[in-house]
Amino acid sequence: MPELRKDPIISRWVIISSERGKRPINFSEKMTTTSSQACPFCPGNESATPREIAAYRSDNSEANSPGWTLRVVSNKYPALIVEGTLQREPVGIYDRMSGIGAHEVIIETPDHDCGLVDLEPQLIRDVLWAYRERYLDLQRDSRFKYILIFKNQGGPAGASVDHSHSQLIATPIIPKRVAEELAGSKKYYDYKERCIFCDIIRQEIIDKSRIVSESDSFIALAPYASRFPFETWLMPKSHLSNYTDTDPDALDELARILKEVLARLKAGLDNPSYNYILHTSPIGNEYRDYFHWHIEIIPKLTRVAGFEWGTGFYINPTRPEDAAKFLRELTVPGTK
Amino acid sequence: MPELRKDPIISRWVIISSERGKRPINFSEKMTTTSSQACPFCPGNESATPREIAAYRSDNSEANSPGWTLRVVSNKYPALIVEGTLQREPVGIYDRMSGIGAHEVIIETPDHDCGLVDLEPQLIRDVLWAYRERYLDLQRDSRFKYILIFKNQGGPAGASVDHSHSQLIATPIIPKRVAEELAGSKKYYDYKERCIFCDIIRQEIIDKSRIVSESDSFIALAPYASRFPFETWLMPKSHLSNYTDTDPDALDELARILKEVLARLKAGLDNPSYNYILHTSPIGNEYRDYFHWHIEIIPKLTRVAGFEWGTGFYINPTRPEDAAKFLRELTVPGTK
Repeated sequence: MPELRKDPIISRWVIISSERGKRPINFSEKMTTTSSQACPFCPGNESATPREIAAYRSDNSEANSPGWTLRVVSNKYPALIVEGTLQREPVGIYDRMSGIGAHEVIIETPDHDCGLVDLEPQLIRDVLWAYRERYLDLQRDSRFKYILIFKNQGGPAGASVDHSHSQLIATPIIPKRVAEELAGSKKYYDYKERCIFCDIIRQEIIDKSRIVSESDSFIALAPYASRFPFETWLMPKSHLSNYTDTDPDALDELARILKEVLARLKAGLDNPSYNYILHTSPIGNEYRDYFHWHIEIIPKLTRVAGFEWGTGFYINPTRPEDAAKFLRELTVPGTK
Repeated sequence: MPELRKDPIISRWVIISSERGKRPINFSEKMTTTSSQACPFCPGNESATPREIAAYRSDNSEANSPGWTLRVVSNKYPALIVEGTLQREPVGIYDRMSGIGAHEVIIETPDHDCGLVDLEPQLIRDVLWAYRERYLDLQRDSRFKYILIFKNQGGPAGASVDHSHSQLIATPIIPKRVAEELAGSKKYYDYKERCIFCDIIRQEIIDKSRIVSESDSFIALAPYASRFPFETWLMPKSHLSNYTDTDPDALDELARILKEVLARLKAGLDNPSYNYILHTSPIGNEYRDYFHWHIEIIPKLTRVAGFEWGTGFYINPTRPEDAAKFLRELTVPGTK
């Protein structure tokens, strides 16, 4: 049974999940290149995953069989488990919680060799729609405080299966970084009575130097204090606290700009591995005024060294203005 | 000129150091295996580094020539630069500071193929002594608030030169993670009037399950909420806030236990790459009661994925108790 343990000094929760130690790639630095025959996410291999939670499939195809275009399953090696009650207890001066949560995989395409960036916009929109559906379903579970959606693309970015997929983890705690964003944006709101993300967007639209791409409702930019070269944030221009507050019709536009940003990174940086993380407000309404959902996209270009690990203090060798200009000025097929 | 930029949401300072983008390994994922002929840290190649700041050398050898056993030089590709005044200014809603700081390299041995773990204890003690000397020298510079000492061993841990060395960065800000440790340990002190690290050590000595090694004055343990498999913290048992408060005579003992812990990691985990970071109090006396210096050693075994990056929320597949037991029970040459 996994457990959640709290660092007593900085109040960071860590998942101790020794079950997960049984994963095939444990401790390996190797890139796993699963062939489509062995790939648990390929059509025909549905029995290699836990039973599907949801799928977008042709009308006459059966659950857990081919015929799908997108499939959601539980993670076979879950970091947290969904069954059980949430127990909190002290361990001397320490604090622990049972490792209750959900850990799901969103298989984005049946095509083993097709990255998210290569999908047609309407299929990327399906992925964004699946995020929404899973969020709406899981937020009804009162044990959960946060639903985290992220994507690891490529071995160096931590993917253990190279068939394109996203992951979702629902947790009984608010992850530390999100808690910091909530605290920081609340502090700003308390002082200014405005959302800090909205103010950032206003300044960036005037300044222009850090914009990677822009559409009617969304903006992609290199943040002023980027930790990593070519770090790119994608956010709605209007104030929206939770991802599910987004007008469903706007997901088409979001799919197009996400595809475009990923295509710029792919073309400009030689198809890099990358991570993205959807930062949305925790479950509940109290964050509505001051938090603003966004997607943080981080291409995996520099090795992060001990200095960064141990300090939360990053050295970025590329000015965000230079990164944004480079990405913005690329000619990418299918974009204006 | 490098600059420090502050993330407006979570108040994290980032070094934007585009000069450093000129480093030879920029954006490369490759392990650099410098031969000793080409190695800038080898004896005979002293002219390949900036002039030495300090060196431990035989009496009749000249500065910047062979004959040394340890050498401190400025980093040739510094993240921060030492010349100039510290300017702070707004950039619209953002905040920046000139990138003033020191960035030094401690070359731990003239032997290209010798890791820190392989050095005789008295030579490791020299490395620890060099940390102390550089700390005492740099803390006199009123522009600096923090002196960060760390080591990247091996390419996967971020080392760009494989000749064994440590690094030192003096900064005009307190790194975020250290600020969090200070805030957390102060909160505990305000409530309990005891140092939280001292209380942790007390509990761990009674519990025993997470101890990796112990000597008269030091303890090495797997922290209760370890982020990484085999993460190990080495700390003085007595309350000492700043590393330089340590009795100089105790550095011999520290060298022996550091060597032993590194030898256990090397023997048990097939000579892993690793990072260590010396967490000491910032410059000044106000942290004396509640902060407790320690070294965090992190073997580089698991790839950290997007989830961890984006959230500060870690999944550790190895229970700290299992890691400590494994390391503790290894038979390592030269230890009891």
